[in-house]
Order: sequence, then C-alpha cells, then structure tokens
Amino acid sequence: MGNEWAHIAMLRQMLAPSQFPEWLRCGIGDDTAIMAGPQSPSEQLVTADMLLEGVHFDLRHATPQQVGEKAMNVNISDIAAMAGRPTAAVVAVALPRQGEGTSAALAEDLARGLKAAADQFGVVIVGGDTNSSPGPLVISVTLFGETTKRGAVRRSGARPGDAICVTSEPSELGGGLGYSLAGRHLAFLPRVSEALYLNEHFDLHAMIDLSDGLGSDIFHIARESRCGAILDAAAIPIARRADPNHVYRDDTRSPLDHGLHDGEDFELLFTLPTEQAEQLVRTQPLRSEGFDVQIHRIGTITGDEGVRLLRDGVSEELVQKGYAHQW
Amino acid sequence: MGNEWAHIAMLRQMLAPSQFPEWLRCGIGDDTAIMAGPQSPSEQLVTADMLLEGVHFDLRHATPQQVGEKAMNVNISDIAAMAGRPTAAVVAVALPRQGEGTSAALAEDLARGLKAAADQFGVVIVGGDTNSSPGPLVISVTLFGETTKRGAVRRSGARPGDAICVTSEPSELGGGLGYSLAGRHLAFLPRVSEALYLNEHFDLHAMIDLSDGLGSDIFHIARESRCGAILDAAAIPIARRADPNHVYRDDTRSPLDHGLHDGEDFELLFTLPTEQAEQLVRTQPLRSEGFDVQIHRIGTITGDEGVRLLRDGVSEELVQKGYAHQW
Repeated sequence: MGNEWAHIAMLRQMLAPSQFPEWLRCGIGDDTAIMAGPQSPSEQLVTADMLLEGVHFDLRHATPQQVGEKAMNVNISDIAAMAGRPTAAVVAVALPRQGEGTSAALAEDLARGLKAAADQFGVVIVGGDTNSSPGPLVISVTLFGETTKRGAVRRSGARPGDAICVTSEPSELGGGLGYSLAGRHLAFLPRVSEALYLNEHFDLHAMIDLSDGLGSDIFHIARESRCGAILDAAAIPIARRADPNHVYRDDTRSPLDHGLHDGEDFELLFTLPTEQAEQLVRTQPLRSEGFDVQIHRIGTITGDEGVRLLRDGVSEELVQKGYAHQW
Repeated sequence: MGNEWAHIAMLRQMLAPSQFPEWLRCGIGDDTAIMAGPQSPSEQLVTADMLLEGVHFDLRHATPQQVGEKAMNVNISDIAAMAGRPTAAVVAVALPRQGEGTSAALAEDLARGLKAAADQFGVVIVGGDTNSSPGPLVISVTLFGETTKRGAVRRSGARPGDAICVTSEPSELGGGLGYSLAGRHLAFLPRVSEALYLNEHFDLHAMIDLSDGLGSDIFHIARESRCGAILDAAAIPIARRADPNHVYRDDTRSPLDHGLHDGEDFELLFTLPTEQAEQLVRTQPLRSEGFDVQIHRIGTITGDEGVRLLRDGVSEELVQKGYAHQW
C-alpha cells in the first residue's frame, strides 16, 4: 500500500532506461515528458491523464460532455505548465455497458466534449481506442505539444531567492484558489496563452499547474529544484465561496484550508527573479493583454528543505496533503 | 447501441478537424496515426490501446506481469503494422483498490511486464499517470514510433491483383492462425523486425496486424483500399490445436473457423505485387535472416467490393465477425 507519489517514485526508478537516450530530455517526474525528435531540433512534449468515473467525476453531477471537456483540459493544462503549445491528442476510452449494449449518446456526448476543448486550443485528435466494459467509464487522453524557442519550463529550475507567483481570476470577480467543486473543477480554461506570454517576456525558472492544490504542488517544485519554500498565507488569493450547488453547505474548514488543499484550480504556479515578480504584480501585463487573469506573489524559494507557511507573523511547517490517490 | 467499428466511423467524422493540418498525414482509421513534426521531415507514428480487466484479460489466468507485457506488445504490434520502429511510450493505469489500499505488488509486477516488453524493442517509457479506483484494472498505453526512409505502410494502399500474404510461426512447429487462447494471446513477439525487413526489401502496398482475426482484419485493408479480396481457405495456415490449459477441450468449431475468427494472432497481413509474393514464398527470406517466421500467400486483392472465401472450389461471401466490442 502506498500513495500516488510513492508509486511514481517507484516507477521512476523501475522504469528508468539503463541509459537515457539522447533524445529524452525529461522523463517521468514533471508535468510532461520532453523529447527531441531523432532528426529534429524541436522539443516535443507529451503527457497523459486518465479520468475515472467514481474517482475523478460523477455522472450524476457532470454531463458526459463536461467530462470529455475536462479529460482534454486537464492534459492541456499540463502542456501549459511547461509553457508549451498543445498540438495533437490520442484518446482511449472504456464505455460502460448498459444492459445489452452501451449508450451511443454517451459516446457521442463524450466525444463532443473532447472535441470542443481540443478545438479551443487548436488540438487535433489523431487517433484512439474504443472499448466497452462492465466497469465504469474511463477516459485516457495522451496529449502532445511543442515548445517555443524559449524552451520548456520545468518544475526543477527554481532557485533560492526566487519569488513564487500564482495566477487566478481577478479578485474582484471572486477569483482565487480553492472551492473548485462549486463548478470550476469541471469548467476551467487551461492557462496556455498566459503561460506562453509569461515565458516569452519573463525569466520563468520553474512552473507547474495546480491540480493537487497549492499546499501539495509547491512541494513538487521545491523537491525537484532541491530547494525549500515559504508561503505568505495573507498573500494567497482565495476564491469567494460561491456555492450554487450547496457543496459547501455544511463546511467548517477555513478559507485558507480550501485555498491550500482543495485542488483542481488549474492555475499556474511559477517562480522567477524577485524584481521581475514585482514588475509582474505591479503592471499586471496579462490583464493589459486582455486576459482576465491576475498575478499574485505568494512567497519565496529558500535554500532550506521543506515548505513553511507564514501566518500572523509565525512560520509553521506545511505538511503535504492535497489530493493524491491513496492506495 | 452499436459496435466498435460503427463507433470509430462516427468518431472519425465527429472528431475530424474542419481543416486537416499539414502535419497530419493520417488520422483515425489506421493502425497508428502519422504525424510530421512541424519543423521536421521525419514521420512520427502514434497509437493507443487500452486493456481492461474482465474484457481483455483475467487476472485468474494471467499474471500482472503478463498483462503488462501484453499491454505494451499490442501497441508495439500496431507500430510494426505500419513498418515503424517503436521509440517511446506513455502509460496510464487505474489500479483496483483492495480493501483499504491497492496492492503495491500488483503495481510493481505490472510495471515489470511493461518494462520487459519495452526493453525488448528499445522503447523508453517516458511518462504516465497512476490512479487507484474502485473499478477493474485498466492499462492504457500510448506508443510512439518513427518510420524508416521507406515510409509507413498503411491499410489503404492495396491494389487489385496484389497478392495477400500473412506471417506465422513455421508450420512444422505448429504455427499458424487461431487458437491464440492456448497461450499466444499473452506471450507473443510483435513482428517489428520482420515488418522492417519486408518493407525494406519488397514493395508492400498495405499492411495490418491481426488483432481481431484474419476474417475481420482483411476487411480493414479491403475497405480502406476501396477493393475486395478473395482468400484461399486451403492456403491459410492454421495453428496446431495445442491446448495445455484445456481451453479448447469441448471445442466443436472447425480449425478454419478458429484460424479466421479467433483474433489476437498479432501476425502481419500484407499485400504486394504477385511476382514479389511468389519470390517471398519461394525463398522465405525471413527464415534465412534468422527469424522463425514463415510467409504464406493466402489470397488476392480484387476490384470488387467485399471479401470472398474460396473453399473446395466454391467461393462464398465472408461476413465480418471476429472480435469487436459489441455495445
């Protein structure tokens, strides 16, 4: 028994090739793998995310079209996290049998959602595999992307002294981290253009998309960069507790706890030199460029190990929880 | 309700980009997609196959390592069917929860099988996604490959008058099509080197790997090539009914029926000019090259529609059945 991270560490070791081929720039352990074409100077990105009914979505609360959109968008968000452009996708699905057959409507609605999300980012679905099964609905998307001339931004490039920044919808619109189950976990726009803009105009050192939650994903940057981090609780943008579905009706957790640990924000978490972060926060260039996106500076990369949370003048060690598949 | 082929036809139409991008040489409908890198002259192949517990394997009859090997090998066989070289893979898995957790042994054995099959063909596992779920074990592999200078061999290139050939293990060793459940469906070696050799030395017009069964897969070549086919029943190599597991104990089906419809042979079915086929069958160059593989000429591509089976001097129309997911 273990959890997803332990498993990934195990796989990383087990599956590592005895010799890393020249074309493999980055394997298991980042948002996407980075490959150079054998006869090409460009870098290819590739990522895979599988969505499982009963684990990642519930067909009583989400339409098959929404599930299709989400299955594509979580992968697009991983390409965004590398500052890449998504290009092509391959989709494998297991459709649950219903009585004697499987609903063609389910298959079509799912495909419609996958296509809608793909189209929005110029992604072409180039192939796939369709199965029917006695089990739950499963959608596995593998997505390709390419880097710009500026190259990929990995998790591992953060340096002590870097500012830690995060994107969010503008505060005045109630934007921020947390409370994603109110709707944002199904309906979000991956930050592809934002990441490309930031990577072109600033010296991003490390980046990740927030899928497990800030309180968990910051550890990926810290560990892969062999650094620590300190987060300023007061600077973390927290979403307004909009609750159309009464998901949070009986909620007793603090807003900060939601902001740190809810997961599925799909915002960009990145580090860069402090002066550049100050400029970013002061000038908010993404907003001038027409994106409804605000940038917050929420902390600093340190030379220590571990992640600390500064709160009311006291710093405490943050324990990684967030959303990880326990098993 | 429909079946996998109807669904693929639907998806092919629904998911088709309004304009095919220049880099997409071949999308949904062949063994793999073919993409040209945006800044590269080489062709990339990509394919995805998902294996589902209870549909494609049964953990009471197959070890997790065998399942891992098969999940990788069915994809490698798809790259072989295009006469490509496999290069890299991405693996997404859903591990079934057991009580409070998931067996780490299952995850490790599965990974061991995936890696063993990958290593055998120089494939590097570059990334993936791990989940735990209340449902059955699911393994989704996306595999990349590259073509040689001779390019990819598609399903769609067959021409009337072409000879239809198939590979098999040598007849004197009991090799042939059918009876795969006796063991071959789990333990097979994808015909990568054989396909590369054939593509280099002969003018292959069309090729596919036998996964659904000859009686079904020949239709893919015929339809995609807008041709027909006639198969000579007497020339089809049928596997000896080796039955260590007594799977076929109470079997009343004819050997020909097994050879046509059992599926999971993972042999190469290809077409080429008749003179070349005659040379191939006469000289058996794969055997001289050290492969334990025999080539059989089993029929001819026709200008008609449909597939006919010539048997005892009488030709009858063949109806596509084989293995397709009904739903």
